[in-house]
Amino acid sequence: MADKNITLVFPDGSKKEFHEGVTGRGVAESLSQGLARNALSVTLDGQIYDLDRALPHGGAIKINTWDDEDGKYTFWHSSAHLMAEAFQELYPDVKFGIGPPIENGFYYDMDFGDRQISDDDLQKIENKMMELARRKETFKREEISKKEAVDYFKKKDDPYKLDLLEGLEDGTISFYHQGNFTDLCRGPHIPSTDKIKAVKLMSIAGAYWHGDEHNKMLTRVYGITFPKKSMLDEYLKNLEEAKRRDHKKLGRQLGIFLIDQMVGQGLPIWLPNGTVIRRNIEQFLREEQVRRGYTEVITPNIGNLELYKTSGHYPYYKDSQYPPINLDDEQYLLKPMNCPHHHRIYDSEMHSYRDLPVRLAEFGTVYRYEQSGELNGLSRVRGFTQDDAHIYCTHDQLKQEIKNCIELTQYVFGLFDMPVDIRLSFRDENDAKYGGRSEYWERAQHEIREVADEMKLEYTVVEGEASFYGPKIDFIIRDALGRKWQLGTVQVDYVMPERFNLTYIGSDNQKHRPVIIHRAPFGSMERFVSILIEHFAGDFPLWLAPKQIALLPITDRQIPLADEYLQKLEEKGVRAYNDRRSEQIGAKIRDAETQKIPYMLILGEKEKENGTVSVRQHHKGDVGSFSFSDFLTNILEEIKSKALPNSKN
Amino acid sequence: MADKNITLVFPDGSKKEFHEGVTGRGVAESLSQGLARNALSVTLDGQIYDLDRALPHGGAIKINTWDDEDGKYTFWHSSAHLMAEAFQELYPDVKFGIGPPIENGFYYDMDFGDRQISDDDLQKIENKMMELARRKETFKREEISKKEAVDYFKKKDDPYKLDLLEGLEDGTISFYHQGNFTDLCRGPHIPSTDKIKAVKLMSIAGAYWHGDEHNKMLTRVYGITFPKKSMLDEYLKNLEEAKRRDHKKLGRQLGIFLIDQMVGQGLPIWLPNGTVIRRNIEQFLREEQVRRGYTEVITPNIGNLELYKTSGHYPYYKDSQYPPINLDDEQYLLKPMNCPHHHRIYDSEMHSYRDLPVRLAEFGTVYRYEQSGELNGLSRVRGFTQDDAHIYCTHDQLKQEIKNCIELTQYVFGLFDMPVDIRLSFRDENDAKYGGRSEYWERAQHEIREVADEMKLEYTVVEGEASFYGPKIDFIIRDALGRKWQLGTVQVDYVMPERFNLTYIGSDNQKHRPVIIHRAPFGSMERFVSILIEHFAGDFPLWLAPKQIALLPITDRQIPLADEYLQKLEEKGVRAYNDRRSEQIGAKIRDAETQKIPYMLILGEKEKENGTVSVRQHHKGDVGSFSFSDFLTNILEEIKSKALPNSKN
Repeated sequence: MADKNITLVFPDGSKKEFHEGVTGRGVAESLSQGLARNALSVTLDGQIYDLDRALPHGGAIKINTWDDEDGKYTFWHSSAHLMAEAFQELYPDVKFGIGPPIENGFYYDMDFGDRQISDDDLQKIENKMMELARRKETFKREEISKKEAVDYFKKKDDPYKLDLLEGLEDGTISFYHQGNFTDLCRGPHIPSTDKIKAVKLMSIAGAYWHGDEHNKMLTRVYGITFPKKSMLDEYLKNLEEAKRRDHKKLGRQLGIFLIDQMVGQGLPIWLPNGTVIRRNIEQFLREEQVRRGYTEVITPNIGNLELYKTSGHYPYYKDSQYPPINLDDEQYLLKPMNCPHHHRIYDSEMHSYRDLPVRLAEFGTVYRYEQSGELNGLSRVRGFTQDDAHIYCTHDQLKQEIKNCIELTQYVFGLFDMPVDIRLSFRDENDAKYGGRSEYWERAQHEIREVADEMKLEYTVVEGEASFYGPKIDFIIRDALGRKWQLGTVQVDYVMPERFNLTYIGSDNQKHRPVIIHRAPFGSMERFVSILIEHFAGDFPLWLAPKQIALLPITDRQIPLADEYLQKLEEKGVRAYNDRRSEQIGAKIRDAETQKIPYMLILGEKEKENGTVSVRQHHKGDVGSFSFSDFLTNILEEIKSKALPNSKN
Repeated sequence: MADKNITLVFPDGSKKEFHEGVTGRGVAESLSQGLARNALSVTLDGQIYDLDRALPHGGAIKINTWDDEDGKYTFWHSSAHLMAEAFQELYPDVKFGIGPPIENGFYYDMDFGDRQISDDDLQKIENKMMELARRKETFKREEISKKEAVDYFKKKDDPYKLDLLEGLEDGTISFYHQGNFTDLCRGPHIPSTDKIKAVKLMSIAGAYWHGDEHNKMLTRVYGITFPKKSMLDEYLKNLEEAKRRDHKKLGRQLGIFLIDQMVGQGLPIWLPNGTVIRRNIEQFLREEQVRRGYTEVITPNIGNLELYKTSGHYPYYKDSQYPPINLDDEQYLLKPMNCPHHHRIYDSEMHSYRDLPVRLAEFGTVYRYEQSGELNGLSRVRGFTQDDAHIYCTHDQLKQEIKNCIELTQYVFGLFDMPVDIRLSFRDENDAKYGGRSEYWERAQHEIREVADEMKLEYTVVEGEASFYGPKIDFIIRDALGRKWQLGTVQVDYVMPERFNLTYIGSDNQKHRPVIIHRAPFGSMERFVSILIEHFAGDFPLWLAPKQIALLPITDRQIPLADEYLQKLEEKGVRAYNDRRSEQIGAKIRDAETQKIPYMLILGEKEKENGTVSVRQHHKGDVGSFSFSDFLTNILEEIKSKALPNSKN
């Protein structure tokens, strides 16, 4: 056969021809030597390949380095093999289950027979891993017949790999070798072990083989690796910082929320300080919504089961709902979402095209039955309040309304200094769960993409992440530690207008179906506040701080003055308290710092005589002496501006 | 036997001796001829007697006139007999069931055989009643043996009276005669029929004998009578007015709420305009509560059944609750009240006597299963939001805290121009449902009475109206039509601190039980707003009006100016809209009046040139021309002052 070329398309849209048989490394080298040096694998049409494997065809290509998700995935997959090799070196009898990469690092499930592996053993393994890594062992791929593979693991006496082989078809099986270690593995892997420069084995857990409690429990060891030692240090520092910021710990310490088993699992109670934070966020969004033409409604927390049968949420999502309440002749569901209630409001009167869009907003408390193992503080709960809204509009208004929703979402997260990544979640055409007419799906997905392009947004498109009634835009925010959280969403819905038979009268005097947009910038007040606590490490912006000012009289003699200031502050709506205890001023300051009060006013005889206040700022210490009225003016300005706390400035 | 005297105590506390055998009329005459003329009956030690019957003993006496509940009761009881006499005159075959007085008037259940009585017959009966009344027939009491009574009704062939007689003991039976009519009756009655000067038969309904659907359905005729014709006119006018103000009609017309059978019976949905009203009332109370040292919390709408078993609300109030939600190993109840959740918050940390009182407030949405026949708009519902709070205090703080609660309640209702009547609801010592230590009950009732006296409140005491865990103060408000509504409540609770094992550390370093006050000024936001709608006939005070200002451009040319004013109003938080339709100004005004918008700004070319606005006030019409900035200043002042609408000034 004559030489043939393949065409590769790069992320920037440029195209280039290559000889058939070119490897990822070859492509990388053609671009830059630096890139080739840092390359870990390549992604071709969504599939990751070894850097030194011949590319099977042309298509969209990306050279993966550590900065790419696919690059990290390859790196940690190879690191799992490296850890397995180290264990095998030290414990030759060990049997191996599976060892995949995960969000942060990797694990391997292993069977050590009667031997117990403890945290104390991990240092040894880490040392062995680094020793093996330095040997620069290459990862070698071998396509192998099923028979040979079975023979190999029979000989090695590894029942788990034999179990895995049973499920594989001949002709699709591959081994990967590095050093003295061979694994049944689809790959891909990084070129060689010396890319791995730092390792930390994080923890040991038990895990049933195939996740089935009837099987043997294996030992799962979690680890993480990096291409630079400094990255590991940074990672461990961030972990410590995340622990310090843990919203469950701070939530308790700052009186924000409470989970009480007697009230119920996953049902958070908002304590006074948490309620202040939540009410302020709600009020902020409420005012913003009024400004943008929304009207607020309040609907009951339960609804007749027929509502959810009509919407299709029941029995479709039955497993994640509390079971129905059975009356004599009806059944009620704790509402798992607000949509059907809002659709019924829309349908309670006739609408002309002139009235549209109708934008109904609700801080609606919904209930979903999460598995108890999934529950976590405020971030995974069974009862939560959505900052929900439904926009009923004409097809012609859809794009503008989507735009408005995106702008609102960007505005609110901007206020908290949280960058937003945008994901367009489309349907997987082959998945039957995506009901509704195909033309509607196409149209909605097309328009979402158009809006995103017109707004010059950076976005990624993910297929198969749409909701069952339509495509959506998901907002992934990044917190102060760089962690990503999926929060807000904007969903386009052509299905519910049909199911609830919603109409408006057009300019042609005929009935038409409106389109619905479901949107929630924060998503869940509970989850958002959990993120906010960790983002700010409890040092909230002044406008959100549960207590904004601590008045600290040095002796009992300044208590009346402090009371006078307290009254003036409260008259202006400032949240303050007077620490009237007979404690030393040092202790009063310490307690206010622990409670993360943004401003402390120290009041002694000197201040009383001069009519001034000594101001201390949280984290910053003494910031000087002010007249009380100047201080008050500044404070009111800072509250109104919704400025970030000084540590974030 | 020698003449004996009895001692009578009058409502003002004065005492007077009378010869034994004196009648109520005799007593009345000794006081004043006018009183004797207006007297209808007397009440002696809580029992009502005929005016001309000899008083059986001394005691607390009250001469009842039309102005007394007991007087009206007697009047309407006699009116039922008068109606029966009239029916008997016109339909001699009629058989009589029972005919009691009720809250507004009286009814009689009658069996007309095959004859159908319709609304058209009522005028005839009214005429006959007035004819009989003018005859000045006296009501004569006759004590009669059971045998004679049975013989009488056998002869008269009246099966219902014979049925009633079966349940009566010989020696306790009495007849009352007036004119040609004789009834089996315990009495008492007014002296004679001529006191009845006006009658209106209101309606006809069906009613099973003994209220049992297995019995025959009788015809129930409702009526009302008055001692003056003008009183009937006033009453009928009020009825019409109440119909005009009906909150279900106005609630729909003004977009306040919606009951949707598909969502669920008795589960109101707050529409945009209703939500504005509710949020403003909530915010007003929230600010007032912060000022008074409350902190706000938010708790879930469900709770583990164990909570309510601990409180005793389950299974005690099972019949008025939605049935539990059954999970695999737990049961949850839609919370019928917020108390247990708050008790758990109190118990989630240690309290020193120095921290008390702890005042936890919540706008808590609760669910109770009212019978579907009882449901009525917003005023009787299955899901409602309480403006709830629980105050945890020491015994020494109790009186002051009760005082604070009463003051708050009086303050909020004063704002709406609603006078408050106070009822102290104490336990009935003989009713077993009032659990808890007797000494606590005595102490709490004593202290409530002390507070009421110290505050110089006018109050009535009602035994047997306490809640099961303690005595309470009920607030009965009167609306613009003089109708009474029981709303707010303040309850003292010594029981729940025991049941939930709540403690605080006293100054003696020992654990003590706090006392709990449950309080809710409005009681239920739904019910309160239903009353508010009728009280104001939908003409809300400016601060509550869903839309405060209508901008009405006379032609399209003034639309931009109206938009400019709209923006200025909205910047100041004023709720306004610009009627941009191409309608005549008259139609725009009419629509704004129908929507009860407090202020309309008419904008024509003249206003545009002069920079003025022509202001029209709802109900009042044109109130003159103002510069826009003066108008804005006035409006903001009126909103801030929470002034009543002009029709109430």
